[in-house]
Amino acid sequence: MSDVPYRIYLSEEEMPHQWYNLRADMKELPDPYINPATMKEAKLEDLYPVFCQELAKQEMDNETRYIDIPEEVLNFYKIYRPSPLCRAYNLEKALGTPAKIYYKFEGNNTSGSHKLNSAVAQVYYAKQQGITSLTTETGAGQWGTALSEACAYFGVPLTVYMVKVSSQQKPYRKAIIETFGAKVIPSPSETTEVGRSILKKHPGTGGSLGCAISEAIEKAVTTEGCRYVLGSVLNQVLLHQSIIGLESKLAFEKIDEYPDIIIGCAGGGSNLGGLIAPFMQDKLLGKKNPYFIAVEPASCPSMTRGKYVYDFCDTGKVTPMARMYTLGSEFIPSPNHAGGLRYHGMSPIISKLYHDEYLNEARAVEQTKVFDAATFFAKYETILPAPESSHAIRAAIDEALKCKETGEAKTILFGLTGTGYFDMQAYMNYNEKKLTDYIPTDADLQKAFDLFPKIPGIQE
Amino acid sequence: MSDVPYRIYLSEEEMPHQWYNLRADMKELPDPYINPATMKEAKLEDLYPVFCQELAKQEMDNETRYIDIPEEVLNFYKIYRPSPLCRAYNLEKALGTPAKIYYKFEGNNTSGSHKLNSAVAQVYYAKQQGITSLTTETGAGQWGTALSEACAYFGVPLTVYMVKVSSQQKPYRKAIIETFGAKVIPSPSETTEVGRSILKKHPGTGGSLGCAISEAIEKAVTTEGCRYVLGSVLNQVLLHQSIIGLESKLAFEKIDEYPDIIIGCAGGGSNLGGLIAPFMQDKLLGKKNPYFIAVEPASCPSMTRGKYVYDFCDTGKVTPMARMYTLGSEFIPSPNHAGGLRYHGMSPIISKLYHDEYLNEARAVEQTKVFDAATFFAKYETILPAPESSHAIRAAIDEALKCKETGEAKTILFGLTGTGYFDMQAYMNYNEKKLTDYIPTDADLQKAFDLFPKIPGIQE
Repeated sequence: MSDVPYRIYLSEEEMPHQWYNLRADMKELPDPYINPATMKEAKLEDLYPVFCQELAKQEMDNETRYIDIPEEVLNFYKIYRPSPLCRAYNLEKALGTPAKIYYKFEGNNTSGSHKLNSAVAQVYYAKQQGITSLTTETGAGQWGTALSEACAYFGVPLTVYMVKVSSQQKPYRKAIIETFGAKVIPSPSETTEVGRSILKKHPGTGGSLGCAISEAIEKAVTTEGCRYVLGSVLNQVLLHQSIIGLESKLAFEKIDEYPDIIIGCAGGGSNLGGLIAPFMQDKLLGKKNPYFIAVEPASCPSMTRGKYVYDFCDTGKVTPMARMYTLGSEFIPSPNHAGGLRYHGMSPIISKLYHDEYLNEARAVEQTKVFDAATFFAKYETILPAPESSHAIRAAIDEALKCKETGEAKTILFGLTGTGYFDMQAYMNYNEKKLTDYIPTDADLQKAFDLFPKIPGIQE
Repeated sequence: MSDVPYRIYLSEEEMPHQWYNLRADMKELPDPYINPATMKEAKLEDLYPVFCQELAKQEMDNETRYIDIPEEVLNFYKIYRPSPLCRAYNLEKALGTPAKIYYKFEGNNTSGSHKLNSAVAQVYYAKQQGITSLTTETGAGQWGTALSEACAYFGVPLTVYMVKVSSQQKPYRKAIIETFGAKVIPSPSETTEVGRSILKKHPGTGGSLGCAISEAIEKAVTTEGCRYVLGSVLNQVLLHQSIIGLESKLAFEKIDEYPDIIIGCAGGGSNLGGLIAPFMQDKLLGKKNPYFIAVEPASCPSMTRGKYVYDFCDTGKVTPMARMYTLGSEFIPSPNHAGGLRYHGMSPIISKLYHDEYLNEARAVEQTKVFDAATFFAKYETILPAPESSHAIRAAIDEALKCKETGEAKTILFGLTGTGYFDMQAYMNYNEKKLTDYIPTDADLQKAFDLFPKIPGIQE
């Protein structure tokens, strides 16, 4: 065995005190948001009805390289951070690979995922501004749980629109969010205009993240003192999630290592963006050249099969339009898809980095292969991973097996974003061989592509 | 804020390499086991049909003070240990108490509890001896999960008899055990003599831990190359669990602190015994004088209302009899009891320490008050605790509130044995005010007391 411990923890003093804003180092910035009401570039003020001011500023700030983490947020971080960087000795041994596999484990908190990193920040800023209630959406339930924890802690009432199929597949996710005092409404619902309209059009729908976002936003903008918060996709979220990458990089410095390959699962891009941020900085500044892989579900393949165009971030088409890899805001993944990561688009930052080939590769994987990797990993690393996280495990195992063939001892880092304790129905289906794969046809995708917004002079 | 960090981690090198055997320092030993077949003191060999040899030796070893942790076990420990000693700054603040509250958090592993500490050791020794399969029982499901993890890791087939009411309340516990490859049988079952006989006598029973133990033992002794392993009560288990207390004590040394009050929940006594072990050593050797509190459910009050007598450890009455605080091996807690800790007896070591007043206090609490404490704790410490663990939280909060009255800044340590992710049905019932309390009447208890075994010359 090597001298590297199984778990590398930073001390509390070593924890980062600032988030890192990757946009400050990008060669070219993501294209600006466009306000659908004016069809012009969105201004800071355009965001104020939806987001609280400090978060709107962070959303638009392309220059400030490091942003101080407020003390109250840092104190909350200290309850569950630093998260460990783990050396997967047992997995390596089971695979018989010469590769060194590391994972940054973000599941050691009750939300069960990295989502808490941004939830705490967003609730803190909202409370600072005197916001009296918040709304959000949740798909797999990790974001809703994280936000309910942060809201309970800071004493801010919360309403969560939960994708209906998730609320059915995961009743206990709903229960835990309620235990933290938040209100859960399965989406689409009768409580909003957009929900009612979608229910009319698609009566049996299991919902989608885009639709739940629309309902949460409508509720926020029509309620006094209420704002909307989002757990992924946005620049501000990637900023807060940079804590993952910053801690990882410091931990690697402690053991005098540096990853050759960095792998993250990608739904809206929050974990991937946070994990890679400081390593991407090294690449942008020409210091290092790690190979980045984004892994997404074959049933919701925004990067591998979507288009890099302007699109709505929500089905209700009220948010600013972003240029990103997208399957179209009306794309809804097959209801049999149990693996999370069901957002139709991808973070504009991640999209731009992928388009400009700094993010080297996007890879789509089928869910049965994802659950194969998850159960194999659980057996040797004794952590039952979330299906979302298991996309990254799949790719990490595949890369390690390539190393076995070539004999290369590459250093692989992947993000283990969370635990699968609330995904047992999916694991039961997998155990009983009831889990199937679904890959949308080109014709399916084209139908959604046809609905991309038209923007005079930009996207006709 | 103090200089003590929120989370105190030992480094991998600082981790204990030996378990501590508290019996070596006890002024008087627990009374010996009695073999029900001979009504005489049980010999080492009497244990061999049930336990593997090394574990039987540990069970009987009252002398060896420190026992080396085998390297393979230590390597497994390193995947999820050391567990953090946590300073509950937020809880202190929310309570407005001058007390300093610490908890040793054992929930950061997929089994969700401290049970893994002994599971790994037991499976390792069984495999060393060439045992080809194992059986066990599980109540709340933590032990079954832990053992399934250890068995998956070491490649040993496992059958788990799960208390029927638990398997119904917690289908996902069953699913996770199955995900790790073990077979789950709700108990009482038709697969054993004792199961069939209990089903005949009590057709509608939800089962009990004692009954599940009997089935698992019968299965083990009637199957070639099979042995039984148990997650609590036994001396060997308390030995393995001493890792909890040893790590806690080392962490306290790092911050130059020592607890005035040490609190553990008590079902079979595994967590309590492990947590207090090295602190009890200090007390036995006259070095320190911490105040120990065992907390048990009011619906299964073995220490506060049971008798200190010889009793069977299992309903099937095949295991050696132990002198312990017990409600009688046929005692079954009310099915509405959701809080775990449903074993009829108490570890002989813990029982002896309590009887001799080294363990200062046993306290029974009602489950609604336990869940009040659990949700309060979750809000401020952002960990959703297991109902079992929440018994200790209840007492810690109550002690901290006493400090608030008296102004004393006592240092309180409690064991946070696990997480409540698989107890969401109980939390849902609590949220919906459906959780009720049940305290057995003296008449209820007397009925079970009347069935204590008669042992010529010892207990007539």
